[in-house]
Amino acid sequence: MQVISEIRHDDGVLEREFTLGEIPGTLWTPGSTPAPLVLMAHNNGLPRNQSRLVARARQSAAYGYAVATIDAPGCGDRPRSAADEKARADIRRAMQAGEPVDEIFESFIGPLVEKAVPEWRTTLDALLVLPEIGGPVGYSGWTAVGIRLAVTEPRIAAAGLFAGGYVPRAQREEARQVSIPLLFLLQWDDEGNPRQRALDLFDAFGTKEKTLHANMGGHVGTPYFEVEDGNRFFGRHLK
Amino acid sequence: MQVISEIRHDDGVLEREFTLGEIPGTLWTPGSTPAPLVLMAHNNGLPRNQSRLVARARQSAAYGYAVATIDAPGCGDRPRSAADEKARADIRRAMQAGEPVDEIFESFIGPLVEKAVPEWRTTLDALLVLPEIGGPVGYSGWTAVGIRLAVTEPRIAAAGLFAGGYVPRAQREEARQVSIPLLFLLQWDDEGNPRQRALDLFDAFGTKEKTLHANMGGHVGTPYFEVEDGNRFFGRHLK
Repeated sequence: MQVISEIRHDDGVLEREFTLGEIPGTLWTPGSTPAPLVLMAHNNGLPRNQSRLVARARQSAAYGYAVATIDAPGCGDRPRSAADEKARADIRRAMQAGEPVDEIFESFIGPLVEKAVPEWRTTLDALLVLPEIGGPVGYSGWTAVGIRLAVTEPRIAAAGLFAGGYVPRAQREEARQVSIPLLFLLQWDDEGNPRQRALDLFDAFGTKEKTLHANMGGHVGTPYFEVEDGNRFFGRHLK
Repeated sequence: MQVISEIRHDDGVLEREFTLGEIPGTLWTPGSTPAPLVLMAHNNGLPRNQSRLVARARQSAAYGYAVATIDAPGCGDRPRSAADEKARADIRRAMQAGEPVDEIFESFIGPLVEKAVPEWRTTLDALLVLPEIGGPVGYSGWTAVGIRLAVTEPRIAAAGLFAGGYVPRAQREEARQVSIPLLFLLQWDDEGNPRQRALDLFDAFGTKEKTLHANMGGHVGTPYFEVEDGNRFFGRHLK
């Protein structure tokens, strides 16, 4: 793990850009350490420097968590293949034309999840040896990757998942095997993410300790207090 | 308003039994006053000294709210009419026989809500003159009464409603007129309270600032942290 740059923010949070082989990432650590770690990913591989994710990560770090994110293959700062570019163009075209996008998402997001999950586990290996990180690990954000990690990575103790994003069929099946505590966050009128599908997924999760929070509005309308609720959720489980 | 008895608890909360004409009630006030008031009622007129309601009220008072509850007509400490007794017997018999109970509930709970709401408003009048109570008013618990109060009582600024209870048709209609912030609490597998009906009610509320919290388990399985979440919800709106 190679640190590329670091900034100490006014609230005491240390922000470090790093690379781990070809994986670029960011780690935010609070003023007081060792801190429990939260892996934070955006649905469908949105770039790790996306402003909403960065704001969320910094707020959770100021609250007392170490927060890490990486770019998925072909996303953010990473090179895109011709196939990636074509898939993205297909999605944009279908959405603009109001055509069904499920099959295009399935063929793009399905393999992306398969590639992203081993990289998150590699990142976890590298982060857990740092002295400023301690305790059990939480996961936050991208639902499909979270499901996969929850059923394959025993070091993940709790997950906060955001319903607004395509969940491939394989992960919808795997949801029944999830047994860690979950907080599932739904935007009630999320354009392009059918509400009933999200409710069905919540129902399917195998864990007994799962909570759904639903708020009004579209995909990007999650109210600020849900970040606090997420921090408190992790506070109950990362001890 | 006549105080019948008072107890000062170890956490500083003062608990007073009172009567207001023929209405019996309990008021819990925190050590530091004036405090914002939360009216707290159990679904379907369960007694105000029911242990879960008392525990919730005391926790919210210790957190910093004045909390008040009253018995609805024919409920708790109040005399029951022969018609009340018959309706309750009908409900028990139908439930034990696994027969539909909606129409029996409609004919019992509908009028009960009509009778209870003016008494809550009378109680509110009496409480708001007390020097230890200040600020805007919240409502918590019994959904049907909460809907009615939310649309008829401008002093109610926010409401936390529990989905597990029969909501008469009149209040399901009125839900569209509710415009105050809401926290709606659902037990995912609440026996006797159909989940889809609760989700439809959440969808119907007219307010833009509404949040659904759903947890696993049956009617009485709400996790302890939802009391804290409710306190924080009121903290955002009773200022």
